[in-house]
Amino acid sequence: MYAQSLDGFPDVRVRAVCDLNHQAAQKVADEFGLAPFTDHRTMLEQTELDAVIVATPDFAHREAAVDAAASGAHLLIEKPLATTAEDCAAISDAVQRAGVQCMVGFENRWNPAIRRIHDLSASGELGDVLTQNILLSNTYYVPTTMIPWAAKSSPAWFLMSHTVDAAVWVADKRVTSVFASGSRGRLAELGVDTWDVVHALLAFDDGTTANLTSTWVLPDSSPSVVDFQYKAVGTKSAVDVDLQDHGIRHAGEAYKWPGLLGGEIDGRLQGPPTWMVQSFVSRLNAGEPVGPGLDQGVLVTDIVLAVLESLRTGEVTPINRRPAG
Amino acid sequence: MYAQSLDGFPDVRVRAVCDLNHQAAQKVADEFGLAPFTDHRTMLEQTELDAVIVATPDFAHREAAVDAAASGAHLLIEKPLATTAEDCAAISDAVQRAGVQCMVGFENRWNPAIRRIHDLSASGELGDVLTQNILLSNTYYVPTTMIPWAAKSSPAWFLMSHTVDAAVWVADKRVTSVFASGSRGRLAELGVDTWDVVHALLAFDDGTTANLTSTWVLPDSSPSVVDFQYKAVGTKSAVDVDLQDHGIRHAGEAYKWPGLLGGEIDGRLQGPPTWMVQSFVSRLNAGEPVGPGLDQGVLVTDIVLAVLESLRTGEVTPINRRPAG
Amino acid sequence: MYAQSLDGFPDVRVRAVCDLNHQAAQKVADEFGLAPFTDHRTMLEQTELDAVIVATPDFAHREAAVDAAASGAHLLIEKPLATTAEDCAAISDAVQRAGVQCMVGFENRWNPAIRRIHDLSASGELGDVLTQNILLSNTYYVPTTMIPWAAKSSPAWFLMSHTVDAAVWVADKRVTSVFASGSRGRLAELGVDTWDVVHALLAFDDGTTANLTSTWVLPDSSPSVVDFQYKAVGTKSAVDVDLQDHGIRHAGEAYKWPGLLGGEIDGRLQGPPTWMVQSFVSRLNAGEPVGPGLDQGVLVTDIVLAVLESLRTGEVTPINRRPAG
Amino acid sequence: MYAQSLDGFPDVRVRAVCDLNHQAAQKVADEFGLAPFTDHRTMLEQTELDAVIVATPDFAHREAAVDAAASGAHLLIEKPLATTAEDCAAISDAVQRAGVQCMVGFENRWNPAIRRIHDLSASGELGDVLTQNILLSNTYYVPTTMIPWAAKSSPAWFLMSHTVDAAVWVADKRVTSVFASGSRGRLAELGVDTWDVVHALLAFDDGTTANLTSTWVLPDSSPSVVDFQYKAVGTKSAVDVDLQDHGIRHAGEAYKWPGLLGGEIDGRLQGPPTWMVQSFVSRLNAGEPVGPGLDQGVLVTDIVLAVLESLRTGEVTPINRRPAG
Repeated sequence: MYAQSLDGFPDVRVRAVCDLNHQAAQKVADEFGLAPFTDHRTMLEQTELDAVIVATPDFAHREAAVDAAASGAHLLIEKPLATTAEDCAAISDAVQRAGVQCMVGFENRWNPAIRRIHDLSASGELGDVLTQNILLSNTYYVPTTMIPWAAKSSPAWFLMSHTVDAAVWVADKRVTSVFASGSRGRLAELGVDTWDVVHALLAFDDGTTANLTSTWVLPDSSPSVVDFQYKAVGTKSAVDVDLQDHGIRHAGEAYKWPGLLGGEIDGRLQGPPTWMVQSFVSRLNAGEPVGPGLDQGVLVTDIVLAVLESLRTGEVTPINRRPAG
Repeated sequence: MYAQSLDGFPDVRVRAVCDLNHQAAQKVADEFGLAPFTDHRTMLEQTELDAVIVATPDFAHREAAVDAAASGAHLLIEKPLATTAEDCAAISDAVQRAGVQCMVGFENRWNPAIRRIHDLSASGELGDVLTQNILLSNTYYVPTTMIPWAAKSSPAWFLMSHTVDAAVWVADKRVTSVFASGSRGRLAELGVDTWDVVHALLAFDDGTTANLTSTWVLPDSSPSVVDFQYKAVGTKSAVDVDLQDHGIRHAGEAYKWPGLLGGEIDGRLQGPPTWMVQSFVSRLNAGEPVGPGLDQGVLVTDIVLAVLESLRTGEVTPINRRPAG
Repeated sequence: MYAQSLDGFPDVRVRAVCDLNHQAAQKVADEFGLAPFTDHRTMLEQTELDAVIVATPDFAHREAAVDAAASGAHLLIEKPLATTAEDCAAISDAVQRAGVQCMVGFENRWNPAIRRIHDLSASGELGDVLTQNILLSNTYYVPTTMIPWAAKSSPAWFLMSHTVDAAVWVADKRVTSVFASGSRGRLAELGVDTWDVVHALLAFDDGTTANLTSTWVLPDSSPSVVDFQYKAVGTKSAVDVDLQDHGIRHAGEAYKWPGLLGGEIDGRLQGPPTWMVQSFVSRLNAGEPVGPGLDQGVLVTDIVLAVLESLRTGEVTPINRRPAG
Repeated sequence: MYAQSLDGFPDVRVRAVCDLNHQAAQKVADEFGLAPFTDHRTMLEQTELDAVIVATPDFAHREAAVDAAASGAHLLIEKPLATTAEDCAAISDAVQRAGVQCMVGFENRWNPAIRRIHDLSASGELGDVLTQNILLSNTYYVPTTMIPWAAKSSPAWFLMSHTVDAAVWVADKRVTSVFASGSRGRLAELGVDTWDVVHALLAFDDGTTANLTSTWVLPDSSPSVVDFQYKAVGTKSAVDVDLQDHGIRHAGEAYKWPGLLGGEIDGRLQGPPTWMVQSFVSRLNAGEPVGPGLDQGVLVTDIVLAVLESLRTGEVTPINRRPAG
C-alpha cells in the first residue's frame, strides 16, 4: 500500500521491500519493480536508502527501527511506536544518535474527520475541550482472522493507540492519570487470549477528561469492520462524528457501509495512509520536520502501558511524561 | 402530564393536585377538574386517595412519600427514589410499615428503544452482555433554564439515574464497584455550581463492565435538548441505539429533531411517561405487583451516591447491595 | 391484530371473526373468545354488530363492505378503499343508503412521523408546501412471500395508496393530473407479474407538485422490509423524515432496524394500526365523525387508477374529482 | 481553486488567469504568480498555453471555449458544456476543427460516493439498474447570494446537469424521453425569477427509469447548503447514499455538517474538483484521452433542454441523441 501510494509521486523512488516471508516480499517487488529482501540488515547494507518505513507487527518494531536509524535512514514507524518502555527508549536513542528524523504513523492525523475535530479545537471554535468520548472497536474478524498476532496485542494496543493519540492531539493538554477497566474471556474461548473490552478514563492536568472504549467483539454482521464514534464537547461548541457511516449503504450479499475514503480515484490511491506517507516524503524532500514524532510516539505508548497496568491493578495509574509539541 | 395521561383511562379518577405554588396547583386543577392543594398533608387528610404520585424535585421526595404511604396510598415516586441513603431508608420503612406498593418512575422502562435493548438481552438474543456504553447528556438549557434546582442536582442525579437503572436492567448482573471521573467549572461560571461532565465505569460481579457518561454542557444549537446513545455488546449480537434521532429532521428557525414519541395522537397522549402511569394504574386495579420497585430505586440511588463518592475521592468505590429482582 | 388492539379497550367488545379459511378464523376466535365464521353474510345475520372491519385483500373489499353497510354496521375498510371505480361507487352507495359511517384505514394518519409532517403543514410552520418527495418501497419479501395476491396488486396499489393519501393530506390541495412511469420484468421473472418500479408526479391545482416512488425490488439484505423516506419543502421550513431508521440497529444474524413503533409495551399493543382502530371505536362511541372517510378513499383510488392509466398510455392523466375535507 | 489544486502538482505550470473583473484576476495572479488578464483573446495571444480551463457562468462558455480551441489549447469546460444546442454545436465544431481534447467538468465523476455507485454498476454488483432516485437541492443561499446569475440559470441547469450525468453514467443506457414538472414563484418573490422546484422522469431505452429532483428552496437552517441523496436499485443489489451527511456534525453557532471531502490535508488541497483537474493534467501529459468528453457534455445539455421543454409544454419530450461512450 505504501509502495502504491508513492508510485508516481514526485521526487521519490521506492527501492526495496523486506518481509520475513520471501513470497510476500517477491510479490510486492514484482508489482512495483523493487528489490526483495527477507533480512532487513541485508537490505540496509545492499541498498542506499534515505528513509525506511517500519511496518512490522506492533511488538516487533525495535530491531528494524534501530538498525535503519543506525544506517542513517529517516524513519516512518507504524503506530504504536513500540509496546514496551524499553523498546521506546532503544528506538529513541538510536534516532537521536543517528540524527535522523522519525515519524510515528498515527494515520488518523490524515483522516479528514479527525483533522476536522482537531482543527475545530486548534482554531478555538470548540473553546476549551471539556471532555471527549471516543469509541473505536472492531468486529471479531480483526482479532480472529485479519491479524495472526492478535493474542500478543489487544484492543488497547491495536485500537486505543489511535484514540489516545487523537484525544491528546485534540485536547492539547497533559494526561496526568489513567483508570481502566475491561473484561476478557470471549475471545479466549475463540482461541485468542486477550482483552475483549477495554475502557479508559484519561485525566488531564486541568481536571478535564477523556473517555475511551475499544472492543474486539462486535458481530461480523455489523455494516463495517470498524466502529468509530467521536464526541468532543468544548465550552464554545461540540462536534459529534461517526467515522464509519459516511452515508454510503450497500445492500448486497449483506448490508455494508463501503466508506468514502480510500481506494483509487481515477487510478491514483487516495486516503489517510496514502496522504500520510506522501507527507513524510514531501517534508523530507523539503527539509521540513516530519510528525507526529518520537515524543508523541513515546507518550502514547506510555499511556497505553498505563491502561494495561490499571486493568491489572484495578487502580488509577499516574502518567508522568510531558506531552509532545 | 400525569393527569392528562389518565384522563379517559378506564377505571381511574384523578382527584387532587398539590403544589407549593398555589397558581400552579390551581391551573392543573382547573384543567382537569381536580381539587387543588398547597400542602400535601392537607390533601392526604381531606381526600381519599388510593394512590399518590410524588413528583417533587429529586431531593424532596421523602416527606411526601412517607406521609402518603402512612395514609395508606400506593406510591409512584419519580426517579431517583431519593438522593441520600437516609431518605431511601425512611421511604422504604414507611412503605413496608404501611404495606402499600411503591413504584419508582424509571420511565425509560416504557421507552420502546430501551425496552428493545432489554428484551434482546432478556430473550437471550444478545447472549451474555459483555459491555454497555451509554451516553445521556443535555444542552445547557436544562441546567440553566429548565430546572431551577440544577445546582442541587447534577448530571449524575438527573441523567445517570436513568442510565444506571438501564445498565443494571439490561445486564441483569450485580454491580460490585464504581469508578468515576468528571469536571466542573463551566456551569459554575454560568451560576450553576455543579458537575459539567461525569463519567462512570461500573464493574459487574462477573467482571464485565458498563461505561456511562452524562454531561450538562451540550450547545443549545444541538438538534435535540437530549443526546442519548446506547450501545450494548453481547456474546451473540450487539445493538446500537440513537435514542434521540428518530429520523425526523425539521429545518425551521433552527434545525431540530422533533422526535417520534410523545405528544397526542388523535387527542390521546402517548409516550413513555404516559404508558408508565397507565401501567401503574392498571396493575394496581388488577391487583398485580407494580415495578420497578423500591429495591431497584434504592440500588440506583446507592450507585449514584458511589459515583459521587468516587468523583470526590478519585478512587474506586465498592457497592455492597444486592440487585433488585 | 385489531382484536388484540381492542382487547381491554374501554366500551367495546369484539364479537366475531370471519375468514374464508376456517382454521384461520377458528384460531383468532379461540385466542380472543370470538364467534368464528367463514361466510360474512352468515356472520352478519347471526351476530348483532355495530361496526365491521373489512380487512380482505385490496381488490376484494366490495362485497363485504356493501353487505355490512346494508346490515347497518359502521365500517372500517382497509386502504385502498377499492381497486376499481365501480367498486368505489358500489361501496359509497351502500354506505349512503344505510346512513352508516365509513372510515378508510389509511393507518399512516396515526403514524407519529406522518402526523408530524401533517401538523407542521396544518399549523402553518411549513408555509405553503412547494413540493414533496415520498419514497415507499419494499424488499422482495413482500411481493414474493408475504402477500400471496401480489400479482393482482402492485407497488401502486399496495404502497402508493399510502403515499398518495399522505401527499394530499399534507399539501391540502387538489390534485389535477398525474404522470407516471415505471418498469416491470424482474418480479415477473420471479413469478409475480406486476410492476417492479412506479414513479408518479402529481400536479396540484396551484401548480405545485409531489413526486412519489414505490418499488417492490429492494434486496432482502436491507435492514428493514420497508424503505420509507419523506421530504416536504414549504415556503417557511422543510422536513426530512426517514420513517424506517428510528435509530435502533441490531447486528444479529443479519443487520436489522427493529423500529421504534408497534409491539407491546408492558402487555398493551401500541402503534399506528392499534391507535387507528381505537380511534374508530372511541369516535363511534362518542358520536363523533370518523375519518379519513369515503371521499378520501375514493379520491386515493381515483389517483392510483390514474397512475396506472398513465403507466399504460405514457401520457399525463387528468384527475377531476374534488378533494376530501 | 484550480490554481491551488495544480500548485506543486508534477509536470504542470499554471501561467495565466482571466477574469472580466480586473481585481479578481489580479488577486489570483498575485497569490499564485500568474499573469492576469481581463480579455481572454489577449491572454490567448500573449501566453503560450497547452490547455485552458473555462470556468465562466454556465451560459457563457461558448466564446472562451471556441477561441481557446482555435488557439490549439486543450479544454476543460465546467458543466454544463453549454445551455443551448447552438453553443454545443459551436464548441464541438471548434474542438474537432482544432483537433484538441475537451473534457467537460462533471466533477462528481471524482466524488468517491458517486464513483462507488458507478463502480458497483460497472462491476456487475448492482446487476441491471432498474431505477435511480437522485435528489440534489440547495438552500436559498445558492440562488439568492452565492451565484449572481441565478435568474439566468435554474435548478435544472445548475443542479440537474450533475444528476443527469450521473444517472446516465451509472445506468449506462440510452435516454429516450423525459417528462418534467415543477413550480416557480417563491424565488421570483425574492427577486430571482426562475424555477423553485424541478422533477424529471427519464426513460431509458430498455424501459427502465430514473427520477431526478432538484430544488433551490431549502431553508438556510439546513445543516448543509447542499442536499444530495442517491438511491440506485439493481437486480442484484441496491445502494443508498447520502452524499452530504458524512457523519460529522458540529453544533456551533448553528448545527452544521462540515463534510469529509475537500479542504487541505497537511497543506495539500484534496477533493473532487482537485482530483478532476489533476486527472486532466496527468492524462494530457501521458497522452491519454481525457473524459468525460464532448459527447457526454452535449448529451447532458440535450437532456436538460428536454427537461425545460417538458416543463414548458407539460408533455413528454423525446431524446434522439445516442449516448456517449
